[in-house]
Amino acid sequence: MGLKSKDLISIKDLDRNELRLILDTAESFKEVGARDIKKVPTLRGKTVVNLFFEPSTRTRTSFELAAKRLSADLINIAVNSSSVVKGETLVDTARNLEAMQADLIVVRHPCAGAPALLAGKMASAVINAGDGAHEHPTQALLDLFTIRERKKTLEGLTVVIVGDILHSRVARSAIHALKMVGSSVRVVGPPTMIPREIARWDVEVFYQYDEALKGADVVMILRLQLERQGRSLFPTIREYADLYGLTARRLAMAKDDVLVMHPGPINRGVEIAPEVADGISSVILSQTTNGVAVRMAVLYLLSMGARADEQITRSSDAPTPRARTGEA
Amino acid sequence: MGLKSKDLISIKDLDRNELRLILDTAESFKEVGARDIKKVPTLRGKTVVNLFFEPSTRTRTSFELAAKRLSADLINIAVNSSSVVKGETLVDTARNLEAMQADLIVVRHPCAGAPALLAGKMASAVINAGDGAHEHPTQALLDLFTIRERKKTLEGLTVVIVGDILHSRVARSAIHALKMVGSSVRVVGPPTMIPREIARWDVEVFYQYDEALKGADVVMILRLQLERQGRSLFPTIREYADLYGLTARRLAMAKDDVLVMHPGPINRGVEIAPEVADGISSVILSQTTNGVAVRMAVLYLLSMGARADEQITRSSDAPTPRARTGEA
Amino acid sequence: MGLKSKDLISIKDLDRNELRLILDTAESFKEVGARDIKKVPTLRGKTVVNLFFEPSTRTRTSFELAAKRLSADLINIAVNSSSVVKGETLVDTARNLEAMQADLIVVRHPCAGAPALLAGKMASAVINAGDGAHEHPTQALLDLFTIRERKKTLEGLTVVIVGDILHSRVARSAIHALKMVGSSVRVVGPPTMIPREIARWDVEVFYQYDEALKGADVVMILRLQLERQGRSLFPTIREYADLYGLTARRLAMAKDDVLVMHPGPINRGVEIAPEVADGISSVILSQTTNGVAVRMAVLYLLSMGARADEQITRSSDAPTPRARTGEA
Repeated sequence: MGLKSKDLISIKDLDRNELRLILDTAESFKEVGARDIKKVPTLRGKTVVNLFFEPSTRTRTSFELAAKRLSADLINIAVNSSSVVKGETLVDTARNLEAMQADLIVVRHPCAGAPALLAGKMASAVINAGDGAHEHPTQALLDLFTIRERKKTLEGLTVVIVGDILHSRVARSAIHALKMVGSSVRVVGPPTMIPREIARWDVEVFYQYDEALKGADVVMILRLQLERQGRSLFPTIREYADLYGLTARRLAMAKDDVLVMHPGPINRGVEIAPEVADGISSVILSQTTNGVAVRMAVLYLLSMGARADEQITRSSDAPTPRARTGEA
Repeated sequence: MGLKSKDLISIKDLDRNELRLILDTAESFKEVGARDIKKVPTLRGKTVVNLFFEPSTRTRTSFELAAKRLSADLINIAVNSSSVVKGETLVDTARNLEAMQADLIVVRHPCAGAPALLAGKMASAVINAGDGAHEHPTQALLDLFTIRERKKTLEGLTVVIVGDILHSRVARSAIHALKMVGSSVRVVGPPTMIPREIARWDVEVFYQYDEALKGADVVMILRLQLERQGRSLFPTIREYADLYGLTARRLAMAKDDVLVMHPGPINRGVEIAPEVADGISSVILSQTTNGVAVRMAVLYLLSMGARADEQITRSSDAPTPRARTGEA
Repeated sequence: MGLKSKDLISIKDLDRNELRLILDTAESFKEVGARDIKKVPTLRGKTVVNLFFEPSTRTRTSFELAAKRLSADLINIAVNSSSVVKGETLVDTARNLEAMQADLIVVRHPCAGAPALLAGKMASAVINAGDGAHEHPTQALLDLFTIRERKKTLEGLTVVIVGDILHSRVARSAIHALKMVGSSVRVVGPPTMIPREIARWDVEVFYQYDEALKGADVVMILRLQLERQGRSLFPTIREYADLYGLTARRLAMAKDDVLVMHPGPINRGVEIAPEVADGISSVILSQTTNGVAVRMAVLYLLSMGARADEQITRSSDAPTPRARTGEA
């Protein structure tokens, strides 16, 4: 049993059963990370490519470790050392990797929609590792995994997402995922950072942090992207920290057993106070640990799916990759 | 049986039998890439270094995959993060890699002759992955492999090479290789891009593309290096595209079963029209696939040769690497 | 039997027996590098991270090869492509790697003390691969290994260290190590490059190179960091080369069987004349070879130690990594 789609571009690609399948699979892979020998032969001889058009340590490393612990061969391609500078199109770059028999291509790109574009042009499985302000589905999956691990359920929870909702792919993916599993979502942030289409998302909108936190089971903090500061979404970092920084005092508004989450890297003293980041409610480092397990699960499940998909493709009249490029 | 030279610097290092040995070996490795588990233990415990003094995705990745599918350990060294900035000489950099017991060193360098210089100073096998406007022998080998795969022969074909012959290491290597196997070569491009020594190369020179294409079995398109545009080799990119861009209309001048080749990355709409790049004559993505197989073959054959060479060296009075560095 | 400390930050972390244990272990690993298959399964399934906040080819590559020859999974993180640019603290970066179950973290950092800071905050083993002008302990270990290999002893030797002692982590580590094993150390260099606290180090200070070389068993040359030239530590490179460049003529002042060492990369014609670098006294390339073996030994011994340490930690009331981050 695998996933229906050959790719993971958006949380919307998944149904509720598939989402559960990924989390359950991740659970068994998490155990591998705790072993003395953190390695299984599952993807031996498979090729996984990290194709990153934006700098990233955390996500790139997490996928790299996931691939290596599954015994896959992992190739890192970062945009600046790449032929993209030579003017090749994105699709041509990816097709070339596919021609080198890459089984799974993990893509991060500053433009929303880039991974979907690639997925539609290739037989290889494509995993979206973050595209512009669109989606970052493996982040949402690891968030759900972490919540389920602690709360033993995903249903009926109240989750507060705080910060720059407008520009956040993390928020978009998390909201889709949380709604799918039956949690209710509150968003809170400065009005300049709340997207207009929020009305269509079935979430509650708050502008007062303390208000939003009342009765919360989980607080998901978004990173304040300091590099956006010049764009006048808020007056100063200090003011942002005052209004939307999570302090111990403020956290006391939430439930006693609230979980504090952050996708990292954290800005200590801005969106999160050090005493909260390092406090007993914080599961931030667990998110990192779980990220590797969740990505192992996604790589594994898509590697099965890709294979199945390939066979279907080959026996039908759908174009195979070779035929598609016009080669007889 | 291996290769006589311990290195692959130029196509001229090979004789016709060796060239055939490489292509035949690549054929058996190509099958590995089509397997579910794309990995053989052939070079387990060998160290391959990608030493790249110029940015490259395609060639670097192709060698990396080739090494990994042979189970070798692969180390990437890119020039900017390297001690070359600290002023070490090229030879000292390479000797250090050899001292770390690198078995095979793949070198790309902007200066023609750099890989040959290294090869002469080291016992490790050196593979030229492109040196200035000199040679790029594995590119020529994968081109020949691709032609042989489609045409079932390499003899008696008419191959047209089009573009900036003057600055192209791809053209130089391809011409040597094609002459060696008994094909006839035509070159075509603006007069400013045809080298003066062409007279000595035993090729036909054309300035009209349509003329050159008549009766062609293969068209090898060279990349227009847009970054050279300021150097007045041609007035504008548009003019170049008009005169030397391969369109479907123009391609009709060639034989019906003509193959269209390009080393990549392609400039769509400049030297190649999209309908040709993606058309039924294009074997561009096959070249990429075959590149991995050909590089596996070269790594494998040189790893044998290097070993043999080492033994010969050790039993003779020729200096061993250690003796050469003056250590007793 | 392993090492008492979970980390290797300074040569001072080791006692004489531990130092000998590392060298003896390295000796058995050196044999692996000479095999046809340079690989042992010792660290299979372990994760080693190269976390480099300064550019480096030599040291980074040496650790990468050491890890791969031990069959560990190796992740390279270079500072410029890292989330450090996003403002994360050093400790948070490292804790995240630990949360991804990195077993060993190799750190190079421009600030003295950075690796020690990390070591104190983490359960993972931390190896200092050079921190500012503080220490570079694996360099000192490979130097001792190389001397012992040639001289069959480390006791009673006269070792001259020449150059910029003030800014050299290599010199600091070497001096500690040499004193520990019972050799006597002389330092020589321009007065501007001799640190004031030298009086407390139990070494002889010279300002005349020829004088210092008399009766020397070993000369350890430090790299002249040409990028520091503007800081007026000496008038010109030529003057430095005249006074502190090792020529064959000058080397004749030392013992006949003197060893010439340099951590690399060398500046030919500055601190070392080419005829000396390539001469019969030079063991510079042996240092490189031995570096891989010594790092294999350190990775191996700390991987044991880390495990032991972990168990001790777990059965005591000391905070485990999880507890430390505040997670229940």
